[in-house]
Amino acid sequence: MQVGDPISEEIIIRARESFARQGLMAHLGVEITEVRAGIVKLRLPFRPELTQQHGYFHAGGTSAIADSAGGYAGFTLFPEGSSVLTVEFKLNLISPAQGNYLEAVGRVIKNGRTLTICQLDVWGVDGKRRKHVATGMQTLICLHDTPDLPASR
Amino acid sequence: MQVGDPISEEIIIRARESFARQGLMAHLGVEITEVRAGIVKLRLPFRPELTQQHGYFHAGGTSAIADSAGGYAGFTLFPEGSSVLTVEFKLNLISPAQGNYLEAVGRVIKNGRTLTICQLDVWGVDGKRRKHVATGMQTLICLHDTPDLPASR
Amino acid sequence: MQVGDPISEEIIIRARESFARQGLMAHLGVEITEVRAGIVKLRLPFRPELTQQHGYFHAGGTSAIADSAGGYAGFTLFPEGSSVLTVEFKLNLISPAQGNYLEAVGRVIKNGRTLTICQLDVWGVDGKRRKHVATGMQTLICLHDTPDLPASR
Amino acid sequence: MQVGDPISEEIIIRARESFARQGLMAHLGVEITEVRAGIVKLRLPFRPELTQQHGYFHAGGTSAIADSAGGYAGFTLFPEGSSVLTVEFKLNLISPAQGNYLEAVGRVIKNGRTLTICQLDVWGVDGKRRKHVATGMQTLICLHDTPDLPASR
Repeated sequence: MQVGDPISEEIIIRARESFARQGLMAHLGVEITEVRAGIVKLRLPFRPELTQQHGYFHAGGTSAIADSAGGYAGFTLFPEGSSVLTVEFKLNLISPAQGNYLEAVGRVIKNGRTLTICQLDVWGVDGKRRKHVATGMQTLICLHDTPDLPASR
Repeated sequence: MQVGDPISEEIIIRARESFARQGLMAHLGVEITEVRAGIVKLRLPFRPELTQQHGYFHAGGTSAIADSAGGYAGFTLFPEGSSVLTVEFKLNLISPAQGNYLEAVGRVIKNGRTLTICQLDVWGVDGKRRKHVATGMQTLICLHDTPDLPASR
Repeated sequence: MQVGDPISEEIIIRARESFARQGLMAHLGVEITEVRAGIVKLRLPFRPELTQQHGYFHAGGTSAIADSAGGYAGFTLFPEGSSVLTVEFKLNLISPAQGNYLEAVGRVIKNGRTLTICQLDVWGVDGKRRKHVATGMQTLICLHDTPDLPASR
Repeated sequence: MQVGDPISEEIIIRARESFARQGLMAHLGVEITEVRAGIVKLRLPFRPELTQQHGYFHAGGTSAIADSAGGYAGFTLFPEGSSVLTVEFKLNLISPAQGNYLEAVGRVIKNGRTLTICQLDVWGVDGKRRKHVATGMQTLICLHDTPDLPASR
């Protein structure tokens, strides 16, 4: 399977169900718009509740969708019954994050047994205008034999 | 002025007013708990609206408070009439982020005329238990002669 | 001018002359193999003097060529009479770095007046085999009106 | 065992022997000056063979010693019969790297079974003057049951 290939309905459902359990995504208003092998796209519409002090999207929102997009991009390639955790990520904020919505694209660069590396990109979209607002890199760890379920607390 | 020194009431007010304009901080429920020269602490109480798929704090929330803590830590050392933007940051998520609240500490390591480097740390606090959940680094840029006001859109 | 465009002989010479003043590049045995607008490629042939403890290329060599490739990629787009410094970079070492030589590619993602962001990639090449061994990101600063000359010490 | 504790002669020898197999360290002229639990210090004396275009230490040398210092800091805490690889690192170059020698300090922040996180710092030392020239963060992976020996090629 190559990055970008279509994947089984089952894997798409697994990713969407896990995404739906992320309370933060609902609280910010993030939608998952595309799931392919090793690629996930998320969309975050603008709301005043998402701003930093100058009225742009706060880097925390940009980071949240970049991190989730990369995490689920990796997750689509992980074996059944495993979980994903972010080890670390780095984000360059290259332009003020503005637009009707932000689109985050997570794309797997290297898929290893334990560690997976993703490229993260975020775009600010305003009608036809599409501006690159952040780019980064993320390291994920695959927890084998650890179903992706809520921790019992 | 050394990092950690007390600072003037005026600078504290300037930082708190700017923080209060960050819509995302209010939306997540973040409080600013300490402002000293080059050091800012923020607190994010746990809510189900902040979780990732396993029920821990989502890395997006951890990132949001780490980024704001560092940004305002730098801002306390910037000259009057200037603004702060994050150039980039990198965060290692070293333990699952859990607890009654997260505490983010931003601390200036190097304060330059144009660029300022901060250390970022986030702790998960549960009663007396205090666990290091994330550590990172951030590069800020000081925009001279650019008052920290909402962009006219 | 777009990234990847051919550039003037003058800019190529400026980049090559600056590169030739990097004592470390000669000491490691690095050659500059391509200079285009916003893209520079370097080659580092294998020598036992470049290894880490398992006999692969040491990450220090991989970093050195990644950093120089990105730095000169940015430099090709800088105005005359300016200098380049690396603000920070981050590198993921995705496979053991081996081969007859390493090839580093620095490519400008965002070219700003003050800050420029580059993508860094390093490949291990062995005859026809070409393996992606490292990927990263770099922030450069353009020092305007600071000719790229040896500091007077 | 706490970070900073003295460690057994056996672990010190294991780290020094592995370090001695790094061809790049000898080629650059790096000495290992301190080995404690989770902390390793390296020293790189200035030579024209280590410079960038302005005559300072090249970031490649700074990176090489930062990476090795962190790698061996982690290695001191790893179980017998295991190896260390760098997953990724990020370095902020906060001042021009100059001085009679550079000193790199790698210090473990979090020691996990699979992944270990280190803080990296590099100082430029000139007689009594000691300047912070770089700070960073590194993720290491412990390869269990993989003795730290040269790969059979």
